[in-house]
Amino acid sequence: MALPNKVKIVDLTARDGLEGFKHLVPVDFRIELVNRLSAAGFPAIEVGEFVSPKVIPAMQGSDQVAQQIEPKPGVEYSALVPNMRGFQDALKAGVHVITIFGAATEQFSQANINCSVEESFGRFEPVVAAAKEHHVKVRGAVSCVAGCPYEGDVNPQAVGRLVKRFHAMGCYEIALGDSIGVGTPRSIKAIIQACEDQGVPASVLTAHFHNTCGMALANCYAALEMGVSILESACGGLGGCPNAPGATGNLSSEELVYMLNGLGIETGVDLDQAVAIGRWATEAMNHRLDSKLGEAMTNPNMTYFEKVVREPEALA
Amino acid sequence: MALPNKVKIVDLTARDGLEGFKHLVPVDFRIELVNRLSAAGFPAIEVGEFVSPKVIPAMQGSDQVAQQIEPKPGVEYSALVPNMRGFQDALKAGVHVITIFGAATEQFSQANINCSVEESFGRFEPVVAAAKEHHVKVRGAVSCVAGCPYEGDVNPQAVGRLVKRFHAMGCYEIALGDSIGVGTPRSIKAIIQACEDQGVPASVLTAHFHNTCGMALANCYAALEMGVSILESACGGLGGCPNAPGATGNLSSEELVYMLNGLGIETGVDLDQAVAIGRWATEAMNHRLDSKLGEAMTNPNMTYFEKVVREPEALA
Repeated sequence: MALPNKVKIVDLTARDGLEGFKHLVPVDFRIELVNRLSAAGFPAIEVGEFVSPKVIPAMQGSDQVAQQIEPKPGVEYSALVPNMRGFQDALKAGVHVITIFGAATEQFSQANINCSVEESFGRFEPVVAAAKEHHVKVRGAVSCVAGCPYEGDVNPQAVGRLVKRFHAMGCYEIALGDSIGVGTPRSIKAIIQACEDQGVPASVLTAHFHNTCGMALANCYAALEMGVSILESACGGLGGCPNAPGATGNLSSEELVYMLNGLGIETGVDLDQAVAIGRWATEAMNHRLDSKLGEAMTNPNMTYFEKVVREPEALA
Repeated sequence: MALPNKVKIVDLTARDGLEGFKHLVPVDFRIELVNRLSAAGFPAIEVGEFVSPKVIPAMQGSDQVAQQIEPKPGVEYSALVPNMRGFQDALKAGVHVITIFGAATEQFSQANINCSVEESFGRFEPVVAAAKEHHVKVRGAVSCVAGCPYEGDVNPQAVGRLVKRFHAMGCYEIALGDSIGVGTPRSIKAIIQACEDQGVPASVLTAHFHNTCGMALANCYAALEMGVSILESACGGLGGCPNAPGATGNLSSEELVYMLNGLGIETGVDLDQAVAIGRWATEAMNHRLDSKLGEAMTNPNMTYFEKVVREPEALA
């Protein structure tokens, strides 16, 4: 199968990249972050999360972030919403796109959202109905598609059936979350195939692959080969629990853009700006820069990057 | 094209992983390292380099390493050899497999081995002839196949023609070195295709992809798709200049093994032992552990790896 000519990167720096910090992340910083991301050309940006501040203190003030960013025409700004309460808050803040999220396994569902998988769908229904009423678009996300920290192995067919339910409910995009980063290209392809077997086209699937084991980029390449053209990442590889160094983190947006440039796939994102955001945001959060490319391209000893062709136009 | 069922990993920890250190790396440590690598199941191990200690101080005593390791039957121990002087020393040390190395670009050739590309072939010829006479096997390696720090872009066809010369000279394996890690799956595939267009089969090509930009594993996956079944890596991602943090480094052997396990491809390498070697060797060298998987699997907070299926038998 030919690779797509164009992909949509959903940048998660301001949400998944920050939510693991155990303290409020200043609203002003998050606003600037989102504005920098839109300026860099990211076509879709997750700006925050409407959850209890007791559970996720970092994301307090997501309403202010949503309201005070400078909206760039054509950019899709979304927010995570776990329930009706969160939806009401998101609606009040003027959010037009929400992401609802469930898990592929019972034990992760209990640990993450405190209910069974079946119960989670019971919570989604009123949210989706209300969203429809208010012309809010709904994305879906499934955690632990390639492995679960509690249950271990996950059946791709079970993931396919869950994804079908999100799709049937009206989610226009559904993220396949390899939350603990244990998938490899074969398991990722099997999951995507299982979704297609359930009648869900690859065109609505989103690759959300954590880089815990260093597999994320290879897995994205495998997903592209299966026709997936929406991919999620975070600048600087931000994400994961900052107190557990190994428990990283998102795929670095700058590495994703670099690979896509090399593949001649259009993203609309300026690589240098993505690199700069990764450096700036990780420094601001006093977090390590978790991006090989980011390290290399901001290393003053490595001037050769100017000589090595990496712009999509030149490579296409 | 179907992926290979089995691959040969050439572990470079004891050579490429260490040669960048600006001081002699203790011989005893290197001997123990090689013995641990063979015990872990690596089928091929580069043990050292027969060069001037003024140029590469770290690799002094490679003769002692070659002579004092406990040779494990069936394991291929090799050493890098730049010229006849190096060959004589390697021969004296009882080395049965040597690697000769050139560059894809004139400027890198001058910088790395102080002669033109054409002159380098003039040096190879007597080495290869002497090796044949003494029943020493010869591998070839080409640097900078996907980009050069001095010349920038590199023409895949030019790489294909060079690789053909190594092949015609009698090299039974030829490593495609993306020395600065700037390739992406498309450029890697183009290079392999160019070699095949020159009549060199993928079965003799070796993937040697540095992880400077985080692309190495995705590039290995692309190479596997092209039929490449020999891959080089180093435990803990050791390699590169320790004084320039961004100028890393080899692909982590443990990440490569993990991905191959996931793909159901046999390597013969024990993942847990590879992880342990990466941790041990980087600690011994006071170098950061440059492997996401290594970090995750040695993080005491991340006990879930025991639950996540990752053994090749279980996945096949």
